[in-house]
Amino acid sequence: MSSIKDVADLAGVGVGTVSRVINNHSKVKPETREKVKAAIQKLKYIPNEVARNFKMQKSTMVALLLPSIWHPFFSELAYYIEDELDREGFKLILCNSGGKPDKELYYFDMLNQNKVAGIIGISYNDIEESVSTDIPIISIDRHFAKKITCVTSDNYTGGRIALRELLKAGAKKPAFLGSITPVYSETMLRKEGFIDEARSLGIEHIVYEEPDPVLDHKKYFENFFKAKVHRDVDGVFAITDLFAAKYIDTAKQYGIRTPDDVKVIGYDGIQDNKLFHPILSTIRQPVEEMARMSVKLLFRKMEGETLEQETYRIPVEYRAGETT
Amino acid sequence: MSSIKDVADLAGVGVGTVSRVINNHSKVKPETREKVKAAIQKLKYIPNEVARNFKMQKSTMVALLLPSIWHPFFSELAYYIEDELDREGFKLILCNSGGKPDKELYYFDMLNQNKVAGIIGISYNDIEESVSTDIPIISIDRHFAKKITCVTSDNYTGGRIALRELLKAGAKKPAFLGSITPVYSETMLRKEGFIDEARSLGIEHIVYEEPDPVLDHKKYFENFFKAKVHRDVDGVFAITDLFAAKYIDTAKQYGIRTPDDVKVIGYDGIQDNKLFHPILSTIRQPVEEMARMSVKLLFRKMEGETLEQETYRIPVEYRAGETT
Repeated sequence: MSSIKDVADLAGVGVGTVSRVINNHSKVKPETREKVKAAIQKLKYIPNEVARNFKMQKSTMVALLLPSIWHPFFSELAYYIEDELDREGFKLILCNSGGKPDKELYYFDMLNQNKVAGIIGISYNDIEESVSTDIPIISIDRHFAKKITCVTSDNYTGGRIALRELLKAGAKKPAFLGSITPVYSETMLRKEGFIDEARSLGIEHIVYEEPDPVLDHKKYFENFFKAKVHRDVDGVFAITDLFAAKYIDTAKQYGIRTPDDVKVIGYDGIQDNKLFHPILSTIRQPVEEMARMSVKLLFRKMEGETLEQETYRIPVEYRAGETT
Repeated sequence: MSSIKDVADLAGVGVGTVSRVINNHSKVKPETREKVKAAIQKLKYIPNEVARNFKMQKSTMVALLLPSIWHPFFSELAYYIEDELDREGFKLILCNSGGKPDKELYYFDMLNQNKVAGIIGISYNDIEESVSTDIPIISIDRHFAKKITCVTSDNYTGGRIALRELLKAGAKKPAFLGSITPVYSETMLRKEGFIDEARSLGIEHIVYEEPDPVLDHKKYFENFFKAKVHRDVDGVFAITDLFAAKYIDTAKQYGIRTPDDVKVIGYDGIQDNKLFHPILSTIRQPVEEMARMSVKLLFRKMEGETLEQETYRIPVEYRAGETT
């Protein structure tokens, strides 16, 4: 079996350079990288990752902490994150927190002990006071106070686009439907964008929210429909696609048809085929870009770089469906 | 910082017992377990898992190798597998193979090098000749030749139930629609059950298959509709829910309505809400049971046990929707 020294000799470089190519850890000239890769292939050199990592005191494990992989938005995100990590020879550890703060903290402790190389976290809880870790972290959708870089879709512009698209579809009195979370989250900007755009255009609009988590959706929508001021609402921007679908389903029971009586736009773009109806009109999250960007930023942090931004917002697009 | 010895002294047990409690690996009396846990809490003892695992030459990592986490069946499975692993202090490494044989082999090599404690694999490819690993493996849905234990839903009974439910719904000439995979998979038993049940009841039936993978579904269904012998088919059992939904969508373009003209039953039960239509009538996979059973069997293998069965088949249920 060939050694790293054999690879270095054949490529005409030092052992350190081979190691850097294998680990993708430092700037190596493209030509040098190609030479080393060719030598690795020719000699069928297989680095012993366990030995290597132990020697380097480095892990090639990155943890993904999210509420639940069993949700189309998160599973798509996980798919692309794993793909991007794998390109660099890193492995993904999956941690489902169930959205519970204590479970999240438990995982942070566990990951700290296991010395993972980095963490990509999606949390909507107020756990920042309790998170103490030297491990590089990238957060998706959520700011932490401790200068943890956040990657998110451009929620604010998404809210503005949603308002404009509702008007384009003929709505005269659009409403935002969402919930109030106790901690600041980037997703709140969906509402801000919606309100700002309505105000700047001088459009009468409604904002309806109940405290998060909304467990009884039937009750939530009943409360909404009961209020007289909501009766002539003819456009709805729902905080997520699932929320939009629940609104449409409940509205039907009140004899309100979509899109005839009310135009509805969601946020996420979780439907990846056109086989099930209604196909929601939605603000599509750039999931793949968010995933790959998170991994790239995490790698930069792992190399000790200080990132120039705290929040990276990725452009969104409107995708027309059957509900506007 | 307290050591494992301090914990043992306070609990009045040996160090080995503390280790067994921490690792959940052996039968420890409930009272002893409680005493040890109390001592751990009192002393705020934190086991260093890295050191511990290295010393024990044991990993607490289990890999899940599947085609793509971005599929509702697999993401539900992954959710429960992670939950069950976490109960025992094990972590899940996620590996998306994209269904590609070379990617699967690459992951097996990587996992071998990284000495994971076990692997739960879902593969529909013919890679068994190339898999050489001493790591315990449990397979889902798929037999490997090398005596790898397989956990699956009771596909055969599922096929029989589907045929009977189509008849109950009024179908006179039911068809099975699927694809032919080059390697044996447990999912093939869906067809076998369907055929056997039709034969035993003396029912005229159709089996339509094209080679896997079916990339052009439009073409597949066109071929199906073109054949004269298929024109009076009034019941369809599709190999998966997604396939059923694609059939329904294409049939509509031919003026064939579901369930008026044709009753349709799928297999999987991927729809976890009633917000999108059609809600498919389906044979629901017992995903949670399959996931937990796989983990439990894997732990038994990891402890060196020889399992009494090669295949564990878990009962399925019919779930009525809007398509029958």
